[in-house]
Order: sequence, then C-alpha cells, then structure tokens
Amino acid sequence: MLATGLALNPDITVGLMDTDITGPSIPTMLGVAEETVHGSAAGWEPVWAGDNLACMSIQFMLPDRDAAVIWRGAKKSGMIKTFLKDVVWGDLDFLVVDTPPGTSDEHLAVNSYLKDAGVDGALLITTPQEVALLDVRKELAFCRKAGIRVLGIVENMSGFVCPSCKHQSQIFRASTGGARKFAEEEGIRFLGAVPLDPRIGMACDYGESFLENFADSASAKAIRGVVKGVVDELGLKDIVLEDDE
Amino acid sequence: MLATGLALNPDITVGLMDTDITGPSIPTMLGVAEETVHGSAAGWEPVWAGDNLACMSIQFMLPDRDAAVIWRGAKKSGMIKTFLKDVVWGDLDFLVVDTPPGTSDEHLAVNSYLKDAGVDGALLITTPQEVALLDVRKELAFCRKAGIRVLGIVENMSGFVCPSCKHQSQIFRASTGGARKFAEEEGIRFLGAVPLDPRIGMACDYGESFLENFADSASAKAIRGVVKGVVDELGLKDIVLEDDE
Repeated sequence: MLATGLALNPDITVGLMDTDITGPSIPTMLGVAEETVHGSAAGWEPVWAGDNLACMSIQFMLPDRDAAVIWRGAKKSGMIKTFLKDVVWGDLDFLVVDTPPGTSDEHLAVNSYLKDAGVDGALLITTPQEVALLDVRKELAFCRKAGIRVLGIVENMSGFVCPSCKHQSQIFRASTGGARKFAEEEGIRFLGAVPLDPRIGMACDYGESFLENFADSASAKAIRGVVKGVVDELGLKDIVLEDDE
Repeated sequence: MLATGLALNPDITVGLMDTDITGPSIPTMLGVAEETVHGSAAGWEPVWAGDNLACMSIQFMLPDRDAAVIWRGAKKSGMIKTFLKDVVWGDLDFLVVDTPPGTSDEHLAVNSYLKDAGVDGALLITTPQEVALLDVRKELAFCRKAGIRVLGIVENMSGFVCPSCKHQSQIFRASTGGARKFAEEEGIRFLGAVPLDPRIGMACDYGESFLENFADSASAKAIRGVVKGVVDELGLKDIVLEDDE
C-alpha cells in the first residue's frame, strides 16, 4: 500500500521488493501473479505493475502458483541478496521492502546488504491487540539494535463500521491502548489508523488498486495519510498526490 | 485454541509448544507470560497453564517481555530441538505444536526432530481471502512433500455479525471460495469456519479462556467442532467434552 500510494504520483518511480520467500503475496495484490521474470545481460528485469512501479518476488520464479519454497534461512538470505544485486531496478526514487513478521534472516539480510546504500527507515505495522503489539515491540527493539530509524507506526484493522446500521465495532480491540499509546510511550510517530474495509481484501485478491478504486473511502484516506506522513518524516515534500478536496 | 480445547477434558494432558521464536504469543494468550522456565536435573520444566496444559515458549527465557530474539534459522532450529529434547514434558496425551506461517526452518525442524516419534498430522489454518489461501496451498504442498498427513483445514475470521443490528458482513471475503472450496478441491477435511468475535482477541490479550468464558458463542461452538473433528480424524473417541445441550 505504501508503494502503490507513492506510485499514485506518475512522476516518481517506485520499486517494491517482496522478501517473504515462503509466502509471497505481493504479485497477487498487484495483479501481476502470472508474470515471470526475464533475464538480460545486465541482470533480471523486475515485473512492472503499471508505468512507475517495479516489483520483484520469488513468486515470479515458481514453476506453478502453488509450489512451496522449502528453504532454510541461509537460502532465503541468499535470494534477498540476489534481489538487491542482480535485479535491474533502474533509476528508482523509492525502494520499498516488504518483510514478513519477525526479527530473523530476512530482516538481517535486508539490513546487511543495504548497509552501504543506507536504509532510510522502517515502517512498523500492527493491529490493535496486545498480542500484535507484543511482536511489534520486539521489531522495534530489533530496529534500535540494528541502528535502523523508525519512521512511525500504523494501526491496521482498526475498527469496523457496519454497512447496514453504521454501528462501529472494535473487532480487534486495543486492550492496552493500541498503536497510538505505543507510539507515545516509545517516542515514535503515530502515522494513522486504517479501519477494516471488506473492499481492501477484495482489491488485494483481484489485484486491483484499492487506493484508486475506492479513493473516497475512510480506509483509502487513512492510507494516503500514512504515505504522506512517511514522506514528511523522510524530509521530502510535494511528492504525495494531494486529495482533490 | 486446539490445545485449550483438548484440555477442557481434565482427564487428558496436553503439551503446547510455541515454535514462533521471534514472535511468541502463546504465553500471553494462556495468561502465563510472567512465568519463567525452571531447570532441574532431568531438564527444563514446562510452564503449566492449569492442571493439564503444559507449555513451552522462548518468551519464558527472555530477560524482559519486549526483548527481541534476533536469530537466524539455524539457531531457531536448535531451540526447537531443545524444546523437544530437554523439556520434561512428562506423560502427555497430546503435544500440539504451533508454528509461524511459512515452510522454512521451524517446519523442517519440527518434522525432522519428531520423525522417530511420528507426527500424527498437521492442521491448516487460513482466513477466507485468496491471498491467505495462496500461502496455505504452499503449506499443503510442504506437508505432502514431507509426508505429513493433513488432518484438515479451518477457516478463521469467517464473517462478522454486527452486535447492534445482527447484519452479517464478510469482512475478509472468500473471493475464490474460501477454505471450504479449497478443502473440496484438495480432498482434505473442512473442519469448520470460526466467525470473527471481538471477545476472542480480548480473551487472548487478557490470557483468559475464550472457550470457557464464552462457551455459548458461535465462535466457541465452531472451535469445539474443530477440536472434535481433529480427534475424530485421529481415530480417537470420547476425548472431547460434549456440549451440555
């Protein structure tokens, strides 16, 4: 969503790297799951989802959609290195790296292989419950230990408005204060809360752009707010497309 | 939930092993997050959550709750081996192993170290969307490759009934037929669909038993149905406590 939010601006070019080697979802979500990666003399060509969004995922290399990648950590790290070294990313304005949850091989690999280029920062994503924040606290500890700047935290699945009666339910309740309180306590930026919307899951399944197709929804507005906050936190300006309103 | 569902019967003893080394949630969900593991001459003592539910998780060994475990795959596998070899599990009727998503070190470790004891089978958990089923298809491929019997599949987060107007929303929509169709296509058992209920997340955060405290809820009934299906699939009988009705 961060990558597609940035790519709403046709003047900037975004790369999106899927480091979830055993459960790659990004090609499906971008509607390019059927694509394969082509090699050239210069290296592997990423798959383009639109004019200004280049994407790389192990899913593009599988013999069939459902094939399992049964790899230990060292091999996963090697593939992430390849994604960074041998993919012809071209002239990108942003490279967004999506990682699976945890603090293990994928995270160490990204940090180590991008050390010289420099990682601008990490975006933490949680849901409101304490069991989710428990993991995110560990991810924050990892970032601090690894010297990675934390750009902020987003609360996903934050409330649901019944389409029939407009009653709002906290399906995943913030029993310990959710991401907002967490951000306050830890001195990091709270970038926003994205409410549950069935159309998000549908758009992901069908590989359609939720941000474009449902631009007026509360969730799309919240996501655009997150993108704006990230860009602001990076000290950049005039990059995110403003709402027309 | 499978482990706590089995442990509703006071006559059987259940072990629950948390193989999520970088994001352990089970101690919180069982209300024993503050416990630590004690060593004895025979090995490490698991933490008991009630009279007949023994639990082991790396969370019990951390200096503080939020400490990150920044370990590569090989080290994670080593800890799983230790959980199996050096923990004094005692005389268990069931050992339930909870794994993180994926098909990597944790899954290979469990399968390899339990090879001689024999794994009775794997329970697949999904949510209704295609992006979730995509991962589960890879997990099924892993089980088939590794020779692990699949006991069945459960669909979690399956619909939500508005507490105000009783309107049912499919927040995570089964755009490709969900777990039921998946089970049919793959010839595995569909063990049931568990609807979203805010009280599940609350019970997990507070370490309380959802199955006991909200026994009459649709979700608790569905979960008890899953436990019954698993026990039935294993060829066992009269182990799961029946509803009073």
